[in-house]
Amino acid sequence: MNNPREIIIAIDAMGGDQAPSAVINGAFLASKKIPKIKFIFFGNKMKITPLLKGKNLLNISEIIHTNQIITNDVKPTEALRKFRKSSMFQAIDSVKSGVSNAIVSGGNTGALMVISTVLMKTISGINRPAIATMFPTKKSETLMLDLGANIDCDEKNILDFAIMGKIFSKAVLGIKKPKIGLLNVGSEILKGSEIVQLAAKRLSKEKNINFYGFIEGNDVPMGIVDVVVTDGFTGNIALKIAEGTSELYTSYLKKTFNNNLYSKFAFIISLPVIRSFWNKVNPGKYNGAMFLGLNGIVVKSHGRSDADGFSNAISVAYDLCINNFNEKIICDIKKVFK
Amino acid sequence: MNNPREIIIAIDAMGGDQAPSAVINGAFLASKKIPKIKFIFFGNKMKITPLLKGKNLLNISEIIHTNQIITNDVKPTEALRKFRKSSMFQAIDSVKSGVSNAIVSGGNTGALMVISTVLMKTISGINRPAIATMFPTKKSETLMLDLGANIDCDEKNILDFAIMGKIFSKAVLGIKKPKIGLLNVGSEILKGSEIVQLAAKRLSKEKNINFYGFIEGNDVPMGIVDVVVTDGFTGNIALKIAEGTSELYTSYLKKTFNNNLYSKFAFIISLPVIRSFWNKVNPGKYNGAMFLGLNGIVVKSHGRSDADGFSNAISVAYDLCINNFNEKIICDIKKVFK
Repeated sequence: MNNPREIIIAIDAMGGDQAPSAVINGAFLASKKIPKIKFIFFGNKMKITPLLKGKNLLNISEIIHTNQIITNDVKPTEALRKFRKSSMFQAIDSVKSGVSNAIVSGGNTGALMVISTVLMKTISGINRPAIATMFPTKKSETLMLDLGANIDCDEKNILDFAIMGKIFSKAVLGIKKPKIGLLNVGSEILKGSEIVQLAAKRLSKEKNINFYGFIEGNDVPMGIVDVVVTDGFTGNIALKIAEGTSELYTSYLKKTFNNNLYSKFAFIISLPVIRSFWNKVNPGKYNGAMFLGLNGIVVKSHGRSDADGFSNAISVAYDLCINNFNEKIICDIKKVFK
Repeated sequence: MNNPREIIIAIDAMGGDQAPSAVINGAFLASKKIPKIKFIFFGNKMKITPLLKGKNLLNISEIIHTNQIITNDVKPTEALRKFRKSSMFQAIDSVKSGVSNAIVSGGNTGALMVISTVLMKTISGINRPAIATMFPTKKSETLMLDLGANIDCDEKNILDFAIMGKIFSKAVLGIKKPKIGLLNVGSEILKGSEIVQLAAKRLSKEKNINFYGFIEGNDVPMGIVDVVVTDGFTGNIALKIAEGTSELYTSYLKKTFNNNLYSKFAFIISLPVIRSFWNKVNPGKYNGAMFLGLNGIVVKSHGRSDADGFSNAISVAYDLCINNFNEKIICDIKKVFK
C-alpha cells in the first residue's frame, strides 16, 4: 500500500493507570510508525494540550474536552446510563457517528464493551462480540478468542469466533488459509464438554473454515494453529495464566541473576542478550485486545500499559481499519450463512 | 518423624515413554531420599531384574511379572475390561487389596483413572475423584485441582475439591489455615458462570474452609492462595497453558543466548546462573499428579518424565501415605457434612 488513506483514531485520553501521559506518548510513538494517522483525544483539555505540544502532535490532533471519567470501579450498566459525557463514551460515539475510524481506550473493560455494543451493535449475522488478542508462539503468533466477552457460549458463537479469527489472520496477518483450533482437554477419558463437541461438529462441516480440530493448552504457545477459539471463561483464564507464568519466569530469572557477586557479574556480561530476550517476551508487544464483531473498530489497551504498549494498541486499531477488517467479515458471514 | 513406618509403593514399571529404565532409575533416586521405602514392580521380569540389580535395589524390591501393557492408545473402558493382567491393573489391585500403600504409574492417564476408580471406589462423602498437582508460584507453590477428571462440575464437586485441597495443604505441606481460591474471570461485566457463583456461595458458608474468594488466572503463579479449585475443563487447560508458556520462554532464552558469538560467550559466563535458574523452573520438580478422593493413593507421573521426575512422583505418593492423607479426608468430610 503505497498511498494509504487517512485514518482517524478516537482516543480515550483519560483511560489507564498512567493516563493521559502514557496515552499521549503512545500516540506520539504510533505517529512515528504510521503515516497519515490523525487523533481525536477525549479528556481534560488543560492536561492534554501541554502534552501534545511537548510531542509536537497538535497539527495531527483534535481535543474534545470533558471532565467526566469512567473509573474502574464504575459498573458497566451505570457507565452506560450516567457517564454519557465521559471521555470513553464520547470517543466511542465518535466512531459510531463516523467521525473517527476506530477507538482505543485503556479504561474500564466492562464499560468499554457494554457502551460499544449498545452504541455500535453487532455486525449483522454475528450474535455476540468477542475479545481477541495475539498470543506469542514458538513459530510466531496466534490469535485467540474469546477472552472474556462471553462466559457461556453455544456452537454458533464459536463458529462466529472462527470466522472472525480467520478474517483477521487473512486480512491483517496475511495468512492464506489460517488453521483454526478448538481448545479442549486432551486426556483420553475426557472428550470435552457438550458445547465443545457440538462446536467441533459445526466447524468441521464448514467448507469456508480450515478446521484443524481440537488442540490442548500446551499446543497454543507451540503455535500449532493460527487461530484458537474457545469460550470466554476458558479463554480469559488461559490468557491470564500465560501472563502470570511469564511474569513468574521473569521474576525467577531476575532473582537468579541477582543472587551473588558472580551472578551479578554474569548479568552485566549478558545484559545485551537479556535485553534482546526481554524485547521478545515484553508483554507490551502484545498489548491491544480487539473487540471483534461490532460495527466499528474498538481496541482495549491494558490499564497498566506504558507508552510502548499504548502505541501498539493504536497500531492494532490502525491495522484493522486499513485492512477493511469489518467489511471482510460482513462479506464472509454472508458466504457462511447463505 | 524420627522413625517413619515402612511404605510399600506399587510401581507400574512399564508406564511412560522411557519405561522401564527411567522408572527404575527414579525408584533408585527416591530410595536414596526416603528411608524404609519398598517397591513392588509390575512388568516384564526379564527387563526389570537387570536394571534393579544394576541399582542395587533387589533387597527392597519385589517383581510381579506380566507381559501385558496398557499403551496410550487403549481406551479406558477397554483397559478395564481386557487388560486385567496388565502391569497397571495389577499395581492398582495391589493397593486395593492392601499389599501396597500407593501406586505410581507413568502410563495411560484415562486408564489409570478409570481402573483406580472402579477398583478402589471414592471415599465415602466424596462424589468424584479429582486430579491435583503442585503449581510453582512467586511465593512457593500452590495446589491446583481439578485438572481434568471432571469436565462438568457442580458446587458439591468444587466443595469436595476445596476440602481435599485443604487437607493436602495442612497435612502434607504443613500450612495451618490454607487459603482456598476459586478460579474465575476478572472482568467487571462478567461475574462468571452459574456454577462458579453457586460454588462461591457454598464455599463461603463453610466454616471449616478458609475461603479467599475468586481469583484470576494471573493470581495463580503469584501465589495469592494456597489451593486453587476449578472444574476439570478449565484446570486442565490452565495447567497445560502454563506448561506450554514455560516451554516457550525456555526456548526463547536458549535461542537468544545462541544468537551470535557474543551471546554464546555470555552464555558460557552465565552457565552456573542459568543452571540454577533451570533447576528452579524444571518441570520434573512438579511431576506427580495425584488422584485424590479414592480409597487408595494413586499418583500419575508424566509420560515423558525422566528418572528425576519419576522419583518426584514417588515422593509425592510417599508423602500422601506417611501423612495419612486419606484418613484425614474421611475425618474432615464427616465434620463438613455432619
